[in-house]
Amino acid sequence: MRESIKDKVAIIGMGCTRFGERWDASAGDMIVEAASEAFEDAGVEPKDIQAAWGGTLWTGLTGMTVGHALKLQFIPITRVENACCSGTEALRNAAYAVASGVYDLVLAVGYEKIKDLGSPGVPMAQGSGTPTQVFPQASAPGLFAMLATRYFARYGLSREEGKSMLAKISVKSHDNGFSNPKAHLRRKVTVEQVLAAPIIAWPLGLFDCCGTSDGAAAAILTRADMARSFKDDPVYVKALQVAVGFGAGDMRTDYDYTHVEEAYRAGQAAYAEAGVTNPRQQISMAEVHDCFSITEAIVMEDLAFSPRGRVKEDIDAGAFLITGDLPVQPDGGLKCFGHPVGATGVRMIYECYLQLRGKAGERQIKNPKLGLTHNQGGQPPSAAVAVSIVGRDTG
Amino acid sequence: MRESIKDKVAIIGMGCTRFGERWDASAGDMIVEAASEAFEDAGVEPKDIQAAWGGTLWTGLTGMTVGHALKLQFIPITRVENACCSGTEALRNAAYAVASGVYDLVLAVGYEKIKDLGSPGVPMAQGSGTPTQVFPQASAPGLFAMLATRYFARYGLSREEGKSMLAKISVKSHDNGFSNPKAHLRRKVTVEQVLAAPIIAWPLGLFDCCGTSDGAAAAILTRADMARSFKDDPVYVKALQVAVGFGAGDMRTDYDYTHVEEAYRAGQAAYAEAGVTNPRQQISMAEVHDCFSITEAIVMEDLAFSPRGRVKEDIDAGAFLITGDLPVQPDGGLKCFGHPVGATGVRMIYECYLQLRGKAGERQIKNPKLGLTHNQGGQPPSAAVAVSIVGRDTG
Repeated sequence: MRESIKDKVAIIGMGCTRFGERWDASAGDMIVEAASEAFEDAGVEPKDIQAAWGGTLWTGLTGMTVGHALKLQFIPITRVENACCSGTEALRNAAYAVASGVYDLVLAVGYEKIKDLGSPGVPMAQGSGTPTQVFPQASAPGLFAMLATRYFARYGLSREEGKSMLAKISVKSHDNGFSNPKAHLRRKVTVEQVLAAPIIAWPLGLFDCCGTSDGAAAAILTRADMARSFKDDPVYVKALQVAVGFGAGDMRTDYDYTHVEEAYRAGQAAYAEAGVTNPRQQISMAEVHDCFSITEAIVMEDLAFSPRGRVKEDIDAGAFLITGDLPVQPDGGLKCFGHPVGATGVRMIYECYLQLRGKAGERQIKNPKLGLTHNQGGQPPSAAVAVSIVGRDTG
Repeated sequence: MRESIKDKVAIIGMGCTRFGERWDASAGDMIVEAASEAFEDAGVEPKDIQAAWGGTLWTGLTGMTVGHALKLQFIPITRVENACCSGTEALRNAAYAVASGVYDLVLAVGYEKIKDLGSPGVPMAQGSGTPTQVFPQASAPGLFAMLATRYFARYGLSREEGKSMLAKISVKSHDNGFSNPKAHLRRKVTVEQVLAAPIIAWPLGLFDCCGTSDGAAAAILTRADMARSFKDDPVYVKALQVAVGFGAGDMRTDYDYTHVEEAYRAGQAAYAEAGVTNPRQQISMAEVHDCFSITEAIVMEDLAFSPRGRVKEDIDAGAFLITGDLPVQPDGGLKCFGHPVGATGVRMIYECYLQLRGKAGERQIKNPKLGLTHNQGGQPPSAAVAVSIVGRDTG
């Protein structure tokens, strides 16, 4: 009886701000910047929007933040929060509302004004509601580093081999992001520079960690059957899946610190929803949650792009370079584009939207058909993972 | 092209904790308490749930709070936040997901563990994202009191007449809540006691202010066409509307402090969605957001239950008593049942669900057909308002 979201909803306009240290802009300013690009792209006006969803982790309570910024008066505006999946969740809930038939023109916007918050790397002051969570006082780099050390040990990578594999991931993302005018950290780095950088939590050094950024990204959604009345080349939602889990010391004594089960499950569910049977061949590009370089490595395996324990072979072969058979982070990823938490999921879909429509400029991939995005919220051994698939044609 | 949510989604199980100073329970404990009642009521198990939505303002980030409590592993769980509308928003987004066809058995749970937070009456430390908001340092009682003083002035009520009108609202809610075993403040009060209580912000005294409570409430939703396979007497969603606005000093120089435009708009939209043409006659009962007694008075007019400026006549006539023609707050309302922010919207629908199915015990209303709920988030002159209508039959 259950139906797929596939080809029920289309994206007809998107926008994204420059990410970075946006001391020049409030959250509202960035929402306006991203949404204005999306409105213009879709050829609609704010007054046409029937309902909106805003995704943010830390930046203000209630839907009023979005409403105030865009002067959307008296429509439904809902805040959605699911850690680093918040932006994709805003789009997912907007998509269900459109697919339900209740609305036919809605806005999803992700945003975060994070540089004002102090030191986001330290543990959050706000309670997680899960008092038995393992390592509540550990930092994100420390927790993700355990994925790396355990992965190296299990698959027999020496320290040097492991560090080198991770370095190539960051070098690739910096290469891609260098030509992206909206990216936060626009510089190329070498493997030697990455290896020589200060260690944050071994084996993760400074260049294994993503940027901490301000930014916003927006999408305008309509019913698939109405999309071409707005735009000749809409992008269609093929899958929107989320898997929320929690791990070791609590329910899952099997937590192995070499994969993220939530990513595997959300990925498999997304492939089923989109009708993808061979991800490595059918997915044209991917934007994944490289909060740390090791996360990207493991995600390639969780999403069935590389066999378990063998992502290093694909990295060494250049498979995920923009010239490879499966370009990953063509816009620079969290690593280089930056990571304004609530904005990130929508930013990833924005890159797919540009690429699928041949509008990605210098970093354009040849003839992409399906784009995948992946967000991971939470920290090992707990995660909320969102996977979306979008494509340029129906069917 | 747009369709109503009416009769697409049914509620087949609900639960609600005792509200109050729940030093005995964590947020997770209360989620389990509410959801367990809902699971048992629906005859389903946690493993049957395909996706979940959690509504909370302050209690923990991410959907992991709900997942951890209920041991829902690897399904989508999304946190929704829209101030005091958070619970209803969780149910609204869950309903759209069901109506989209993607899921056919989902959970919506609202919860708040608020007594641990210190003094929720004082202004929030977290930024609202709206830097130009009027009176950012004013407290909730102070801001809502301005509705009362302005209303009295505009409609020619003396101080004594106004205070007496408000007192009767609180007396009615305490009368109703007295017999509710789950209510926070189970005591009857007299008009004289209300009038003699300490003033918090004139004319609002202690008994004009709602409780500050811990609690949780849960609902299980399915497709309307599947509902009777779970339950002989499901309750159907007839309307789910939200209006978010912001007021004086910013966009709306017309803000008059004698009504809440968002409540009027959400109410009218809900009536249109549900096909209600004469609210006073067709709505059998209402649970409205009586954060303060004046809010309830004004909401009666905004929802077109009483003519503008004339709610006092209906109050004096006993129209909103449990024995009146339109019982309001039959369970005691925020005033007496309490106000765990994220739980409140779902608690209101829980009362409609009990009443519509003839299961409200001592406080049962005779033969109700349609129940209305109303939440108001934010503070004058800004508001996010949710209005839902539920009914016991389709058509």
